[in-house]
Amino acid sequence: MLLMILLAPGCSVILCSAAFAQADPLPSWNDGAARTAIVDFVARVTTPGGRDFVPPAERIATFDNDGTLWTEQPYYFQLAFALGRVKAMASEHPDWKARQPFKAVLEGDSKALAATGEKGLLQIIAATHAGMTTDAFAASVRDWLATAKHPRFNRPYDSLVYQPMLELLAYLRANGFKTFVVSGGGVEFMRPWMERVYGIPPEQVVGSSGVVKFQIGADSKPVLVKEAKVEFIDDGPGKPVGINRFIGRRPIFAFGNSDGDLQMLQWTTAGSGARFAGIVHHTDEAREYAYDRQSKIGKLDKALNAAAAGGWTVVDMKQDWKEVFPPLTTADAAKEAKP
Amino acid sequence: MLLMILLAPGCSVILCSAAFAQADPLPSWNDGAARTAIVDFVARVTTPGGRDFVPPAERIATFDNDGTLWTEQPYYFQLAFALGRVKAMASEHPDWKARQPFKAVLEGDSKALAATGEKGLLQIIAATHAGMTTDAFAASVRDWLATAKHPRFNRPYDSLVYQPMLELLAYLRANGFKTFVVSGGGVEFMRPWMERVYGIPPEQVVGSSGVVKFQIGADSKPVLVKEAKVEFIDDGPGKPVGINRFIGRRPIFAFGNSDGDLQMLQWTTAGSGARFAGIVHHTDEAREYAYDRQSKIGKLDKALNAAAAGGWTVVDMKQDWKEVFPPLTTADAAKEAKP
Repeated sequence: MLLMILLAPGCSVILCSAAFAQADPLPSWNDGAARTAIVDFVARVTTPGGRDFVPPAERIATFDNDGTLWTEQPYYFQLAFALGRVKAMASEHPDWKARQPFKAVLEGDSKALAATGEKGLLQIIAATHAGMTTDAFAASVRDWLATAKHPRFNRPYDSLVYQPMLELLAYLRANGFKTFVVSGGGVEFMRPWMERVYGIPPEQVVGSSGVVKFQIGADSKPVLVKEAKVEFIDDGPGKPVGINRFIGRRPIFAFGNSDGDLQMLQWTTAGSGARFAGIVHHTDEAREYAYDRQSKIGKLDKALNAAAAGGWTVVDMKQDWKEVFPPLTTADAAKEAKP
Repeated sequence: MLLMILLAPGCSVILCSAAFAQADPLPSWNDGAARTAIVDFVARVTTPGGRDFVPPAERIATFDNDGTLWTEQPYYFQLAFALGRVKAMASEHPDWKARQPFKAVLEGDSKALAATGEKGLLQIIAATHAGMTTDAFAASVRDWLATAKHPRFNRPYDSLVYQPMLELLAYLRANGFKTFVVSGGGVEFMRPWMERVYGIPPEQVVGSSGVVKFQIGADSKPVLVKEAKVEFIDDGPGKPVGINRFIGRRPIFAFGNSDGDLQMLQWTTAGSGARFAGIVHHTDEAREYAYDRQSKIGKLDKALNAAAAGGWTVVDMKQDWKEVFPPLTTADAAKEAKP
């Protein structure tokens, strides 16, 4: 950067620095209380000598994923992945044609699927998430993302991320923050794509997990095999526990969108010094979805009350965001063009 | 750096770059096979365009702690901490004077303590590691480090780290590696001091852990409380599992010193591309300790065979290290001077 400035023809250091400083780091955010709260907070904790200054090593920012960084309607995308996997794996499991809950998935019978309840869901998760190596599972996630499309938007699922939140992640990192995902989603489902999509490396993704076992394979090579046993649910009170376990220090900045994020936001704001808690409020039926207190997915009720009481920042998607989704990349568009 | 070079009076870019390049990053390592293997590996994976080049994001290096980064004799230092805590907490527990295993600890009766066996040890760990908040526990670790001294070296425990390994950690980081600790030690015992001592932040420390629960305290503030229940043992086959869980990608460089590190080294070297596995072999009775195949603590037997078979790098402490421990800092010396 310095070299570019020094060498840029017809451009003095001072003028160019000013030009860089003026480039808007949050172009998809409308002016308003949410944007102002974010920018003010970042200025306060990064101003050397200021009362609220926080050393870079302690600038930990945590983000929920479903409904906070990408869409979670009309279902958690991990469920779409699991159902897609049932279809992809069906040829190896001929018995599934006659066996619930798999029969319902293969026939696209959502009523019969719903009738299998939580038990059916757990069977689907076990069949699609366990009994394979961690490498094979990661490959299955990438395969699914490369072809599957969202039913309403007809776009790849990993293009249904929120452009304003991508800008916020980059803005925080440019200001010395270390950005983490802390999600109820499966950690092995999230890691294969989050570095590419969010710029968040695997070691900064915290999530729910199943038991994994170390084995020496038939070829004498070690493998890690996923088992059909839940190990940790990173949701609700599990989020501060997951933060403690994986990160080992308290965030100063956290963003969520549902009651599953309440305890993470409480834990974040209960620390000393300047703290930021943000909530994405889904108010935009036209461009995305509108839901809160009554929603089956991403219910936002207690956390909305806590936000009002605690002065947390509530983002009104309809008012605060100029854009919701990023423009389709060439690669996405190519995927979209496929039948 | 660039600006310093450009502005340094009487010093051309080329001359100064050469001077920087020539400063030895590993001054406490003698010339020899171990040092050469390390330097060659780093050169191979960091040379752009080279056959073995690894992008910085994938330069993950993992280190065992006990016996690899600091001394583990005559006992794991975490045990010394636990025994120290029993003494520090005794005034709040008058019954301990008459109750084993606490009575043995308070009377310094190592024979009676040994007689309480694993059950006694677990009672001591439970009493000193659980039933308190994570913040209170971290404070107790820092308090202990500030005053306790090693029985043989009469130095603070956190000064009994290996100077050559401190240099190796810094050298790897200067070459774009991200350094992690992956230890059987308790993660909450390690995090309060590793950033200061090793330059490794809490989020890059993987270890064994107990169950932690989120609670809203009496003052309506959320707390995390440690429970007397083991959650995860990060040792042996648990190390690749812990690496997968916390880091989410396979290291390209790993260092250990015992059979508890065997699976981590196997997992590391089984990946594709250039890989480095190192073992600290304790061969220096005069300056530290000498032990391997028969040791009760830090037993190195199977891993030594695997090193020979796999061409791993075995560091001969006596031959390969010019210095073992760093010079005492002023702060350490002040602690040492206390009666």
